[in-house]
Amino acid sequence: MVKGLKPKKNGTPPGGTAARRGELREALLAALERTVVAEGWQALRARDLAREVGCAVGAIYNVFPDLDALVFAAKGRTLDLLDRELADAVGAVAAAGSITSDVATRQLLALADAYLRFAIDHSPLWRMLYEHRAAPGTEVPAWYSDRLSALFAHLDAPLRAIVPDLAEDKRALLGRALFSAVHGIVALGLEERIDTLSHAAIAGQVATIVRACVAGLMARRERDEVVRL
Amino acid sequence: MVKGLKPKKNGTPPGGTAARRGELREALLAALERTVVAEGWQALRARDLAREVGCAVGAIYNVFPDLDALVFAAKGRTLDLLDRELADAVGAVAAAGSITSDVATRQLLALADAYLRFAIDHSPLWRMLYEHRAAPGTEVPAWYSDRLSALFAHLDAPLRAIVPDLAEDKRALLGRALFSAVHGIVALGLEERIDTLSHAAIAGQVATIVRACVAGLMARRERDEVVRL
Repeated sequence: MVKGLKPKKNGTPPGGTAARRGELREALLAALERTVVAEGWQALRARDLAREVGCAVGAIYNVFPDLDALVFAAKGRTLDLLDRELADAVGAVAAAGSITSDVATRQLLALADAYLRFAIDHSPLWRMLYEHRAAPGTEVPAWYSDRLSALFAHLDAPLRAIVPDLAEDKRALLGRALFSAVHGIVALGLEERIDTLSHAAIAGQVATIVRACVAGLMARRERDEVVRL
Repeated sequence: MVKGLKPKKNGTPPGGTAARRGELREALLAALERTVVAEGWQALRARDLAREVGCAVGAIYNVFPDLDALVFAAKGRTLDLLDRELADAVGAVAAAGSITSDVATRQLLALADAYLRFAIDHSPLWRMLYEHRAAPGTEVPAWYSDRLSALFAHLDAPLRAIVPDLAEDKRALLGRALFSAVHGIVALGLEERIDTLSHAAIAGQVATIVRACVAGLMARRERDEVVRL
């Protein structure tokens, strides 16, 4: 699921400082991910991570400016994992050349379903993605925002097939709205905030809302009545 | 917004034990709400609440079995407030007798908009609603689940007008899905999880998804293709 600490080659210490920093960075990320999976991201403490990795607490700050930066690096790896699963989901819906609205609908359904499965399979890391926030006064790193935006690229081609006449900036808002709607159903469903629902019931809710949205957006006569972006 | 501590009448101490317990309960809830509004629910500590109210820490546990029970009581009050705003939103859309699908659509839009406004106006209390969870091993109080379910009653009549042939249990799942979708857009939007969006942009996303869902659900020919509950 997530890469562990690379074993040292032949037991020899790594060469230069850059290699050592890289190895410590990797070890800290792996230790963080193990802690999150076992106890949740709220349990993260610099001291515990240092003990697990076998370094001084201060050594962490040679590699990351602060604990938040380490958490964002881990969130970036989780986004990479999610990105690959979304790419696989879209790729599994065969599409040669320009896609029809039928293929686009199946791609959006596959993306939504992949998001639900990711949240189920990687629950603690997925929760860290949206529950952890930067300390007050600090900004979300720009590279992280870029990586998050890149996720929405998967929705762009299918949405273009469904609402071809919608301006690019409005399509981006629509994609984020649809993603957020699916996220809401998945998050409230898995966290049993309202009811205890089976995964199949949550999948049914997600599929219904995505299908209803697509059908509504494609009802050409009503387009102007629907899009309020 | 939330009721404060009732002033003592004429400075005389309240009569019996029940009255004193009721007054302490009210004072603790008011102190909790002030703390949440000022610092967020994560800042809640029994010791601080006792100091603010002017009682011993142990006295809290004469009124609430534990701090979680006090938080759930406060969440219940927040749900009451939300319930009144949702009722007002539905009530403001005039409907004499059985409602048309047009009125139903406007009611659903009014409910979604009221939810967004509530989240904006009462942000810290609204966050406590869905971020606070019962301690591991303890259950959500049954009265709280009932009060949460009661919120969804506001969606029932409009949804019945929009999908009159949908079985009651499926309509309930649909209502929760639509609520969760709106919640997702509001939560990710207000917390700036994806982008920094204006409130107007979030309102546009909410309205678009609700309108698209309604249009899709009403496309009679496609109903069997849409509902997957």
